[in-house]
Amino acid sequence: MENRWSRLGSAKSTESHNNIKNVCAMLKRNLNTADPRPPILLGHGDPSAFPCFRTTPVAEEAIVDALKSAKFNSYAPSLGLLQARRSIAEYLSRDLPYKLTPDDVFVTSGCKDAIHVMITVLARAGSNVLLPRPGFPRYEACAAFSQLEVRHYELLPEKGWEVCLDSIESLTDDKTAAVVVINPGNPCGNVYSHQHLREIAETAKKLGILVIADEVYGHLSFGDDPFVPMGSFGSVVPVITLGSISKRWAVPGWRLGWIVMNDPLKMLQESAIVECIKSRLDFSSEPVTFIQGAIPKILQDTTEQFFSSINSILKEAAEKCFSKVNEIPCIACPHKPQGSMFVMVKLEVSLLEDIKDDMDFCLKLAKEESVVVLPGAVVGMKNWLRVTFAVEPLCLEDGLERIKAFCHRHSVMR
Amino acid sequence: MENRWSRLGSAKSTESHNNIKNVCAMLKRNLNTADPRPPILLGHGDPSAFPCFRTTPVAEEAIVDALKSAKFNSYAPSLGLLQARRSIAEYLSRDLPYKLTPDDVFVTSGCKDAIHVMITVLARAGSNVLLPRPGFPRYEACAAFSQLEVRHYELLPEKGWEVCLDSIESLTDDKTAAVVVINPGNPCGNVYSHQHLREIAETAKKLGILVIADEVYGHLSFGDDPFVPMGSFGSVVPVITLGSISKRWAVPGWRLGWIVMNDPLKMLQESAIVECIKSRLDFSSEPVTFIQGAIPKILQDTTEQFFSSINSILKEAAEKCFSKVNEIPCIACPHKPQGSMFVMVKLEVSLLEDIKDDMDFCLKLAKEESVVVLPGAVVGMKNWLRVTFAVEPLCLEDGLERIKAFCHRHSVMR
Repeated sequence: MENRWSRLGSAKSTESHNNIKNVCAMLKRNLNTADPRPPILLGHGDPSAFPCFRTTPVAEEAIVDALKSAKFNSYAPSLGLLQARRSIAEYLSRDLPYKLTPDDVFVTSGCKDAIHVMITVLARAGSNVLLPRPGFPRYEACAAFSQLEVRHYELLPEKGWEVCLDSIESLTDDKTAAVVVINPGNPCGNVYSHQHLREIAETAKKLGILVIADEVYGHLSFGDDPFVPMGSFGSVVPVITLGSISKRWAVPGWRLGWIVMNDPLKMLQESAIVECIKSRLDFSSEPVTFIQGAIPKILQDTTEQFFSSINSILKEAAEKCFSKVNEIPCIACPHKPQGSMFVMVKLEVSLLEDIKDDMDFCLKLAKEESVVVLPGAVVGMKNWLRVTFAVEPLCLEDGLERIKAFCHRHSVMR
Repeated sequence: MENRWSRLGSAKSTESHNNIKNVCAMLKRNLNTADPRPPILLGHGDPSAFPCFRTTPVAEEAIVDALKSAKFNSYAPSLGLLQARRSIAEYLSRDLPYKLTPDDVFVTSGCKDAIHVMITVLARAGSNVLLPRPGFPRYEACAAFSQLEVRHYELLPEKGWEVCLDSIESLTDDKTAAVVVINPGNPCGNVYSHQHLREIAETAKKLGILVIADEVYGHLSFGDDPFVPMGSFGSVVPVITLGSISKRWAVPGWRLGWIVMNDPLKMLQESAIVECIKSRLDFSSEPVTFIQGAIPKILQDTTEQFFSSINSILKEAAEKCFSKVNEIPCIACPHKPQGSMFVMVKLEVSLLEDIKDDMDFCLKLAKEESVVVLPGAVVGMKNWLRVTFAVEPLCLEDGLERIKAFCHRHSVMR
């Protein structure tokens, strides 16, 4: 009897070639093991391993207390524990002109899971979705997995990576359901002004599309414009906000995120989208119950001092990164990052002697200097680089020096 | 402009009406709030809230240590932390005639997530899958969600809920990829003998189909036959084992499970199923990193005394449940449960005066006696009941007394 399972091999692989994790892993495999210097990893946005980014003891204690209470070992409801939903509603309401309720909040296993849920919900409806370019390739990967059509609108480097509203208008058609806006921005480090967010909301309203606001980097802002949640414009257009504790608390491994309906005028009541999200959540894994049990204490008791200390480390790192990059002839940073953990750096390939493109740059950089940065192609911008500045300050300095040496060595003008 | 999101309402709801959680919640809403007696919930299999089922301090301490080390706040690899995969391989190898390696193990967010991953992988290949009846409706729900065809084979109550091998043969066709075997059994409390497991493996081999062995209740066995992992027959036919710490450690809220390839002869190498599982895992949420970090200590250091204490509570509860049910005229238990947390109880509707069917029985039982049990229809057996005996002993006794009073009151012979 032929083995019937052999046909399982015909299942199309869904692995994405523009997967940040895979590309970083590939570049790490390319590091020169003979280099006595420690590798410097500026490829991915997870500073939690660095002592200066260690999360607050408040959060750790909250987890220990919830665990030891033995009240949170059971399954959690698929939408989340009520006390977790309530505390997330209160936490987000601090920055909104109206109050969220626990019913507006669904708890997810991190923001990645929130993205997956929303993409599936859109795909089931046969819609298309507008995504930023450059952006966060998890959206594209989930969309490919769910066979959701995506259309890319442009972010404008010369305007601080603002959304090109014209491209949103020209891309929208009858089947467009939503536009995804990532603010503070990954990969660009943008923090949009109140005025620009209002323009986005007004554009979405005019086009009759929803806004999905990816605010996983919410409050990680340190430039001129304060972080304003897109939900502030929830009465202009319904806003579905995605977030998590991963970035602000530097604990991405804790897998606790949320999907929040910012819809004070109940405009979404005419659609069944909320029901779709709820039934989709039944097929996701709930976040760990004792972490949900700890969320009220984490959100209420974390000190401003912890937040401002993280933000000032990031601000200093962003400034160092911006000024240092702009000292290097073959690369340029058009806009100083104001938030998140990333900056986009333009590569002048014509000024480099033996570098074909961004991937070639990154492969050789890893080999020659033991530094990993992400090729821009992975986030939708060929011949750019995405550089993480959220690392230990001395690492960043060392990494930028090595990039400088690499560029000098490969410069046509050397 | 019409709101384009209104079409999102046309997305078909995927909520399953045979969802255990939803039915239990509905029955709980049906409880009589005027009843001064506490409600007794024998509907779902999660004893973690009862003091006598509290998990071992070894597990709690392992979590605290991993958390406080601050080494596990980062993202985990999508297949799981190497040390977690290694320790799961070692833990499962104790009961196998060969050694698993970390490469055979993928870590998932509980067994529910493992089920979802496997069902998606089968669905992508256009296969069909054989599921037990009665069974665990999460399989059917995931299959409906992924549009995977399911076919039900029978479990035989008169033979201790053994698998009907004839029905497996007659259901298998060219597109059948796998048969799911749940042992120890949910909902039947069966523990299959070495001999019967071998027969299942030989049948699957003859038919050229894989075995997916759901062993989430692994080692929760207390009858004549010891628990034997299906993977023992991995050299007869490839076995993909699904499991978790949820049941044996009574911590379903910790969301830590696994998918394990029991394939010592590397028969699956000709298919790409392993690659399919790996790429599918990229779209699941990884288990919390610090829980993965705690897994080696949890699996290595939990004492036999903890396990045997849980099993003896379950054994006593199963025996009490079996004998008590068989004292009640209108219901019968054909087979004493030997494992897991459940028993199937047959309802003699003809002996009950005003009870239409199992759902009607459960609704009235909740209303009149404040006892929740699961209608058999939810697990595929109309006019049966699934009763959980994994509750505090006094609760179980009280619950069975109330069921007895209810049956007497509704008996045609009263």
